[in-house]
Amino acid sequence: MRAVDVIRRKRDGGELEAGAIRAFVAGATDGTWPDYQLAALLMAIVCRGMTLDEAAMLTDAMARSGLRLDLSEFGGRVVDKHSTGGVGDKLSLVIAPLAAACGAIVPMIGGRGLGHTGGTVDKLAAIPGFRTQLSLDETHAALRQVGCVMAGQTKEIAPADAKLYALRDTTGTVESIPLVCSSILSKKLAEGIDALVLDVKVGRGAFMKTAAAARELAEWLRTIAERNGVRTHVLLTAMDHPLGRAVGNASEVVEAIETLKGRGPADVEDLSVRLAAEMLVAARLAAGRPEADARVRRALATGEGLDRFGAIVEQQGGDRRVLDDYGRLPSARLDATWTADRSGVVSDIDAEEVGHAAVVLGAGRHRAHEAIDPAAGIEVLLPVGSRVRAGEAVLRLRSNDPARLDRARARLASAVTVGDEVPETRPLVIDTVEA
Amino acid sequence: MRAVDVIRRKRDGGELEAGAIRAFVAGATDGTWPDYQLAALLMAIVCRGMTLDEAAMLTDAMARSGLRLDLSEFGGRVVDKHSTGGVGDKLSLVIAPLAAACGAIVPMIGGRGLGHTGGTVDKLAAIPGFRTQLSLDETHAALRQVGCVMAGQTKEIAPADAKLYALRDTTGTVESIPLVCSSILSKKLAEGIDALVLDVKVGRGAFMKTAAAARELAEWLRTIAERNGVRTHVLLTAMDHPLGRAVGNASEVVEAIETLKGRGPADVEDLSVRLAAEMLVAARLAAGRPEADARVRRALATGEGLDRFGAIVEQQGGDRRVLDDYGRLPSARLDATWTADRSGVVSDIDAEEVGHAAVVLGAGRHRAHEAIDPAAGIEVLLPVGSRVRAGEAVLRLRSNDPARLDRARARLASAVTVGDEVPETRPLVIDTVEA
Repeated sequence: MRAVDVIRRKRDGGELEAGAIRAFVAGATDGTWPDYQLAALLMAIVCRGMTLDEAAMLTDAMARSGLRLDLSEFGGRVVDKHSTGGVGDKLSLVIAPLAAACGAIVPMIGGRGLGHTGGTVDKLAAIPGFRTQLSLDETHAALRQVGCVMAGQTKEIAPADAKLYALRDTTGTVESIPLVCSSILSKKLAEGIDALVLDVKVGRGAFMKTAAAARELAEWLRTIAERNGVRTHVLLTAMDHPLGRAVGNASEVVEAIETLKGRGPADVEDLSVRLAAEMLVAARLAAGRPEADARVRRALATGEGLDRFGAIVEQQGGDRRVLDDYGRLPSARLDATWTADRSGVVSDIDAEEVGHAAVVLGAGRHRAHEAIDPAAGIEVLLPVGSRVRAGEAVLRLRSNDPARLDRARARLASAVTVGDEVPETRPLVIDTVEA
Repeated sequence: MRAVDVIRRKRDGGELEAGAIRAFVAGATDGTWPDYQLAALLMAIVCRGMTLDEAAMLTDAMARSGLRLDLSEFGGRVVDKHSTGGVGDKLSLVIAPLAAACGAIVPMIGGRGLGHTGGTVDKLAAIPGFRTQLSLDETHAALRQVGCVMAGQTKEIAPADAKLYALRDTTGTVESIPLVCSSILSKKLAEGIDALVLDVKVGRGAFMKTAAAARELAEWLRTIAERNGVRTHVLLTAMDHPLGRAVGNASEVVEAIETLKGRGPADVEDLSVRLAAEMLVAARLAAGRPEADARVRRALATGEGLDRFGAIVEQQGGDRRVLDDYGRLPSARLDATWTADRSGVVSDIDAEEVGHAAVVLGAGRHRAHEAIDPAAGIEVLLPVGSRVRAGEAVLRLRSNDPARLDRARARLASAVTVGDEVPETRPLVIDTVEA
């Protein structure tokens, strides 16, 4: 099948057959389709859309473009969680060890941060010695040993996605539900999972700004994953304000460990427990939500979750002593504060603005290959709803670069609102989408 | 302006500003926009369309992407003709010398054939010694000397079009009225013309299959050209059957010369006179059609047109003796015929099928860089409307390759229809579109 014929068919609004979709994915993987033909088809998909059938086939072809883990030895207990990206979202570091402590097998292959949202791999990389690049053998060994692996994508996993994602970023073809779904799910399918929990973020700090848009994405994700044989539960959760207090890689590791010690911010703990419990239900390790919740709460209270996190860190070459000595994590030389110019109540902290300011500080990146500073970040001293006095600090900024500190403070000018009333906040879990 | 922002704007159905369009064309010309970004924007234009304003700006930017001839020394007499492409369409070879003989300055920079339609440059290249690649100085000199030049596109003329056209061919982005118009007209604007006659072909052998589609294209072409300061007349002409008797480069040169000698097929002569007269009117060299027609007919009758063609051939290094000795043109070693299997009337000869069969014979190309055989082609022995006996030859095929001859004959299986009735034919000129 000639590339130009596949492109023309989609351009004219036609539905692509399995053979055409496989030709496209193979062409992206082995380079026989030049970038300009890939880009033309991506744009045609953005403009003309895809049916659920096409998107499911695309996801399958992308998942098969590289190696797929065979985790059948674990008898159906293999489950992962994926978030569409938020600000201060360190939940994976809490959830994966909690779920593993409750008997789940969690082959979590995550991404690096891009834009104003962070990435799990960047956070883990803040731990001295922690290796996020594991071979397939190491991944198998880690899953047998500690029931969990937290790693970055490798060249072997869904290489078609790596190729297409890089192109989409520069050709204005990111915003497409079928392309977003196939990108997210192809990597998850390649992990060899039986079940999946998706945390679709909604709000100013999320890619999906409205509940309606998020619900549409959630339905697509769930349907495509289910058609590819993965039991999938989707939660829609609020991302208006930063999650927890810490935004920035080393400080988010600290907050995740504190949460595993039972001392984390309430929003981080509650949502972590909720998502970990959902994983147990999806993986059929618990009969229902109440049982699953109780088991996760117990793993948190007994310290089993924390122990499991320590085991993961050790398994992947990291310094386990960070669990008790946060001084072993990178720290920034400089800091600055965002102070209130009036007394009142912190009525809003805009997650997207905070996320962008964190990138300015060096905590994230806007282009795929920019280096980041694990010590840089923003701490929310007074979360939304707090009383504040004029001159009191609401945010603390940390960086190793004074110029970045200045630019980030300028960027934050209108990120915080101080008002007179305690604002109404919506519940963190907005909706659940399941079969 | 970042490429990705321009692409996203068009993707979302927005109108591009002049600056964005200039950035795109500059990026195509100097290579700062990689091919995949150009391809993504081209597909977004195909899917979302362009306004007339955008298309006019795109045309202008493409015309300015290289050198533009300055022909102001000729005082407004500079006029060209362009056809959207047909089968057996050798009219340029007749029209350009006739118009030049009547006082027009004709800087005809034409294309090479692609697909089932032929190209003027390929036909001229069949004349021994004829150089279709001229420098700008040579072009100026030829225009002063003989009032006409017939040449191929050079790197200096609208390089953005050459770049984009090659990409469009492989990315399924050919079919777009704004892109078609900007491609055709940017090269014409770069010629420095004052006036333009466009022959938009309609029918099975044309790119535009219906009069409605052709009329839409004609209106776009005329409006864009006029907005860029070129007085433009558009004729819609029928392209259901091959034009004249000859299809194939050397044989079309012969037919053009025969027409200039007053011995050509009626359809070729009539349409050539009509279009050449239209050029005189558009260039304000004649007060109206009757005067223009009379002048062109006189140039034909007196042999001035033929003399001018000879002068052009000589000026461009070709062997002028071909005018009187067709044996100096390439000829094919082999031939075959398409014979009628019943007696009756030739009621149809499908121009598109004949065009494709001519490509099979080696007279044209389906990919931009394929070589062609100037001697290959098809002769219509019995045109539509002729009486035919069973076993009599309707078409003669010529090639230097026996395998091609067999394949072309197979291709022609259903190209000719022999019926009982003399078919009704529509007039060659279907409509005229002018300001």
